[in-house]
Amino acid sequence: MSNLLTNIIEIRNHANEQVIDKIKQSRPTLVDMGIVGEEVPNFKKNMILTSGAPLPWNEYEGGQRNAIIFGAIFEGLANNEKEADEKIRSGEIIIKPCQDYNCIGSVTGIYTASMPVFIVEDENTGIRSFCNLYEGEIHEKLTYGLYTQKTKENIIFLRDTVMPVLKNAIKASGGLDLREIIRRAINMGDELHSRNTAASLLLTRQLMYYLLEQYKNKPKETMETLRYLENDYNFLRLSMAACKALSDSFKYIKGSSIVTAMAFSCKEFSIRVSGTGEQWFRAPLPKGQVKLFKGYNEEDVAWMGGESSITETMGLGGFVQAAALTLQDYSGGTPEKMINNNERMYEITLDEHPIYKIPIFQFRGIPIGIDIFKVIEKGITPVINMGVAHREGGQIGAGVVNAPIECFQQAVEAYNEKYLKS
Amino acid sequence: MSNLLTNIIEIRNHANEQVIDKIKQSRPTLVDMGIVGEEVPNFKKNMILTSGAPLPWNEYEGGQRNAIIFGAIFEGLANNEKEADEKIRSGEIIIKPCQDYNCIGSVTGIYTASMPVFIVEDENTGIRSFCNLYEGEIHEKLTYGLYTQKTKENIIFLRDTVMPVLKNAIKASGGLDLREIIRRAINMGDELHSRNTAASLLLTRQLMYYLLEQYKNKPKETMETLRYLENDYNFLRLSMAACKALSDSFKYIKGSSIVTAMAFSCKEFSIRVSGTGEQWFRAPLPKGQVKLFKGYNEEDVAWMGGESSITETMGLGGFVQAAALTLQDYSGGTPEKMINNNERMYEITLDEHPIYKIPIFQFRGIPIGIDIFKVIEKGITPVINMGVAHREGGQIGAGVVNAPIECFQQAVEAYNEKYLKS
Repeated sequence: MSNLLTNIIEIRNHANEQVIDKIKQSRPTLVDMGIVGEEVPNFKKNMILTSGAPLPWNEYEGGQRNAIIFGAIFEGLANNEKEADEKIRSGEIIIKPCQDYNCIGSVTGIYTASMPVFIVEDENTGIRSFCNLYEGEIHEKLTYGLYTQKTKENIIFLRDTVMPVLKNAIKASGGLDLREIIRRAINMGDELHSRNTAASLLLTRQLMYYLLEQYKNKPKETMETLRYLENDYNFLRLSMAACKALSDSFKYIKGSSIVTAMAFSCKEFSIRVSGTGEQWFRAPLPKGQVKLFKGYNEEDVAWMGGESSITETMGLGGFVQAAALTLQDYSGGTPEKMINNNERMYEITLDEHPIYKIPIFQFRGIPIGIDIFKVIEKGITPVINMGVAHREGGQIGAGVVNAPIECFQQAVEAYNEKYLKS
Repeated sequence: MSNLLTNIIEIRNHANEQVIDKIKQSRPTLVDMGIVGEEVPNFKKNMILTSGAPLPWNEYEGGQRNAIIFGAIFEGLANNEKEADEKIRSGEIIIKPCQDYNCIGSVTGIYTASMPVFIVEDENTGIRSFCNLYEGEIHEKLTYGLYTQKTKENIIFLRDTVMPVLKNAIKASGGLDLREIIRRAINMGDELHSRNTAASLLLTRQLMYYLLEQYKNKPKETMETLRYLENDYNFLRLSMAACKALSDSFKYIKGSSIVTAMAFSCKEFSIRVSGTGEQWFRAPLPKGQVKLFKGYNEEDVAWMGGESSITETMGLGGFVQAAALTLQDYSGGTPEKMINNNERMYEITLDEHPIYKIPIFQFRGIPIGIDIFKVIEKGITPVINMGVAHREGGQIGAGVVNAPIECFQQAVEAYNEKYLKS
């Protein structure tokens, strides 16, 4: 037994080193755009992807259930709620988790066949990930569980007007180095989850030459694309896709105790761990410290899923919040609390990033490699920056949550079960 | 005497309130561009403006003297150094301080009749200021006392290629709100003196629509302008001009003890105070804590003037350095030192800005209104972020200096002389 234990620890350390190396070497690049049904491997026309560990259809509720049904209607898989519900029950429409299809879901995280996506490739491994586009300034976002004619027209606008221009610009650029944008954005007060102000600007700036060239042939569409790009949130999708492509490069490394996914559904918070592969470890939804937009109160808050916590999983978001103190304004907290939250994340991670660095910590690298054993040992769980949804849809605030410890406990048990008994 | 003193303090408080009100209400706007000889009031064709309190010609030395001569040669006022020197001695070429002509000098601060300038207007007062353009990525900058064929061609490029495009874009925009750019940039890690990364991006972003429209008729020039705008320093000139237009709105307010200018020449550091108007109070050059680019050492450092400290005079730069911790990388220091430096500036100022706020201080307003009496009382002088010049020209680093206390002592004496004896 003691021999086995020593052996396992050696295997684990070696596996974790491999993972850490992938995190350090990751070179996420925005290489292209495309349509879900054409680009996402294994995607089927009658599929709808959504955020979080999968639930039986009966258990989806509120905004996430609505969003799935709206997705079916948008895609023409059903004409109304009743029909969608029936077809999902009968298996004619298939609901799958984003993360099993190289996708990553923002809030409800709906992907259907005809939707446009960014394509990000980790040049270190060649692994690709996909993320849909920020829906812009409209209130009725499918992302937040709402759907009207406006929502539909907006997604079609993103696909038929914005995507062709952006896709050409991205192709002409030869691919955009997201690592450099993320590095600079951290120096400019972003944490790449709740705050993407600098990164969104830097992205637009880098696309600008190529947009100018588009302008010759498509003046109207180019101007509209430029107007669309004028928001502070656009880059979040690319930050998520960058983290997802990286995460998929170690989704199963034998013996590794590093977390590969943290995701919300409307019902649960769940994690995956490299050494236990596709298994989800589930826990009840945690309660966050939130700051709500004016006119809302705590009873309005509802969960409808979300996988933007892939950024924390890879060391961004809450793990670099000390670089983004301006977030006080958006998601609450004090500088002291944010700095303290950030410092604690070094206690549950295995290393520091060589390129992404935090100015206020004298350019200490961001904490990378969440180790389930360290989480249990220290009793500290990952801190996650989040958008907050209204129970009837829409975003009504932002805040900070601590991941529940139960799923880490389960993960440690499953890990030990798998490796100590084999 | 006691009555007079009470009276004076009342007058002073009232005058300072007026000044503070101007600082709080300032709305700097980039309204236009133009040619020095056509736009700058009272400028004469045979004039050269340079940084700092004026010196007798004999006392200009090193990079600043060279830059003045290069200015004469660039402008065709002289064919060579000897001729320039003679014409300056004879009065055929006139040397004047930038600050007396609504201009503000970066390092050597050379303005001649045919150079291009930005025009900034404080919409609160209608007062205009002028600032020349960042010379871009070339090493041979007239700003830093160098001049070659390349320097000349570059200034002509800025005037004949960049300015027409930018001027049209600025005019089409109806004027760019610099206050909003500065506010956002502070949230994004700029202090608007040594760091203007975010502000430069935000400026370009706001000009983009209007640049797209220019592209129709001037594709090559627009593309070249866009390439020129791809630097992290461009906005400094606008930050300086914004502060200069504001400063000129209270260059003489009877009884005010607030500093209106802090400027370097190659020989001296000098200040002006609102209540004593145009009088300069001079002190020997201070010694800074500098961080030099690789390959240089302290003996290489030389002073060649500089008025970018107008930013500190109005509460930016060193007075907001706690918002710009990324500067450690560029100009040295630690987060603790920078935060402490910044906090001390509240002790020598009279109020806090209602719009420009520092995230790490829980959005406390930047310290505004440097009071010469507080400086003397506390023994704390303004902290200034600076670029560092090589004795043979060019920039070789950056750092932080504390203004020498002597000029504040002189200012207090002159103030008391003027107001207590009258």
